[in-house]
Amino acid sequence: MSDIQRIAGVLSPVVTPFQSDLAPDPERFVRQCRWLLSQNVGLAVFGTNSEANSLSVDERMDLLDRLVGAGVDPARMMPGTGCCALPDSVRLTAHAVKLGCAGVLMLPPFYYKGVSDEGLFRSFAEVMERVGEARLRVYLYHIPPVAQVAITLGLVERLLKAYPAQTAGMKDSSGDWGNTKAFLDAFATSGFDVFAGSETFLLRNMRHGGAGCISATANVHPGPIARLYDSWQAADADGQQARLDEIRGIFAKFPMIPALKAAIAHWAGDAPWATVRPPLVALTPEQARALVGALEQANFTMPGLRPS
Amino acid sequence: MSDIQRIAGVLSPVVTPFQSDLAPDPERFVRQCRWLLSQNVGLAVFGTNSEANSLSVDERMDLLDRLVGAGVDPARMMPGTGCCALPDSVRLTAHAVKLGCAGVLMLPPFYYKGVSDEGLFRSFAEVMERVGEARLRVYLYHIPPVAQVAITLGLVERLLKAYPAQTAGMKDSSGDWGNTKAFLDAFATSGFDVFAGSETFLLRNMRHGGAGCISATANVHPGPIARLYDSWQAADADGQQARLDEIRGIFAKFPMIPALKAAIAHWAGDAPWATVRPPLVALTPEQARALVGALEQANFTMPGLRPS
Repeated sequence: MSDIQRIAGVLSPVVTPFQSDLAPDPERFVRQCRWLLSQNVGLAVFGTNSEANSLSVDERMDLLDRLVGAGVDPARMMPGTGCCALPDSVRLTAHAVKLGCAGVLMLPPFYYKGVSDEGLFRSFAEVMERVGEARLRVYLYHIPPVAQVAITLGLVERLLKAYPAQTAGMKDSSGDWGNTKAFLDAFATSGFDVFAGSETFLLRNMRHGGAGCISATANVHPGPIARLYDSWQAADADGQQARLDEIRGIFAKFPMIPALKAAIAHWAGDAPWATVRPPLVALTPEQARALVGALEQANFTMPGLRPS
Repeated sequence: MSDIQRIAGVLSPVVTPFQSDLAPDPERFVRQCRWLLSQNVGLAVFGTNSEANSLSVDERMDLLDRLVGAGVDPARMMPGTGCCALPDSVRLTAHAVKLGCAGVLMLPPFYYKGVSDEGLFRSFAEVMERVGEARLRVYLYHIPPVAQVAITLGLVERLLKAYPAQTAGMKDSSGDWGNTKAFLDAFATSGFDVFAGSETFLLRNMRHGGAGCISATANVHPGPIARLYDSWQAADADGQQARLDEIRGIFAKFPMIPALKAAIAHWAGDAPWATVRPPLVALTPEQARALVGALEQANFTMPGLRPS
């Protein structure tokens, strides 16, 4: 399927803004997505950092409709569509394809633990078969610290064999470079696009044939991460990577999703951004001050982010 | 709320039958629920063993409508309603209360790991507040081997204080008697009903003030388990417990959900019962033969189960 332009580069698992009654806030969402695109970062909406599994299927579909309806380009989108329940994954995936999204990022069903590769193969195969769209591009989402259900080399091999066009790539959020490298070594040359799950691995991923990264901190530090993707062969690439790691390291000292939202709330001057849905809890005022203080100390900014 | 008769005894997390296209099969479902009631076992439909998280919200609501519509008594039902997404848990819980169900069995949101008791308290509190029904009875579902998110003593204490009428009890599927006993010691005398997650702990649970058990194998061995509940103070109670453990031990050698369905398929003479949804995989013919052989060796039967 070389006729289709594959999505690549840096994508953000866009944090989802909520109103005070915890309903999703489509206006802030569209505005944030536009800002991310202006920073050369694509939209992996409905990822882990988007609190996507805290949204109903209808809420996700409505937000995606609003985004595309606002004129945001679906060719820059890779929405998360993998749920525990097969019919939910099918509905979300079919909807994303219909809207023209470049691909979907698909978690394995994550309620049952210790499931077999055979069961996971059938899960992904059923979604692909039921959606039944030649233009579907699935990116498998490996995030064992959260999902506790893994995407293995053997599973990818089977899916590539059975669905070579649809099995487009993966996001590796294992946090284990050895694992990412194993997938790159096995599949990168056959057109399977490996995205690192953090910009910490961006330079290494690019040097080994990877496709970019999909990272939490691309929500708040998009421009510099996208610049390293664009210039990874430049002389200052290692220096750029060190700066990305410095900023990532500050966020990593806090619960990630509340910290991302606290930073956006601060730099956009827009307090409601700090809202999260249970079971997550927003940073305390003390935590938020500590985060902002450490970021200011590191000369962090969010250029172009405007108050609502 | 002593005016309301609490549900107690032995309940089955009823296995969900699927048609060959993997759609739920409401007719087989109603028939199975009637058989379980005839064996004196209540209906904890949409539990872990029901593949409930492999069903969409609409599929669960439709099956519950079909069950109540068929005249099955909702006072004998404790449907599972806890999802990752708050609006899904609210919808399912409100629907169950509206239909008159005795209670709901509520998983914590299970996607994010390492969440705080504060976040879990807010999750349960939001559901109770949004459903807003005085007659709602919530049973907290502790199943750390699967959900990987725990119900703690501190969480129960907070919920009992804030919502004394709604916080009705729990199911402990930790498989750790010490944990069950800690909850019994802390809360049983204040009217908080602790159900063991397996009949393996039924006699101990009753001897320490528990309310019964909600067990996978109540799908296939309902009568004898219910008999121990009814006669736990009888002289032969330990002997009954040993027999229950013998049968449980045979099922425990196989993947539990496919094994339950294989046994029902065999004893009902109804092969489609063996169907599971991905990511689960049905027993192989060899596994099914080994299971049935071991059960026959142990003189296991399923009296009253009729072919379709």
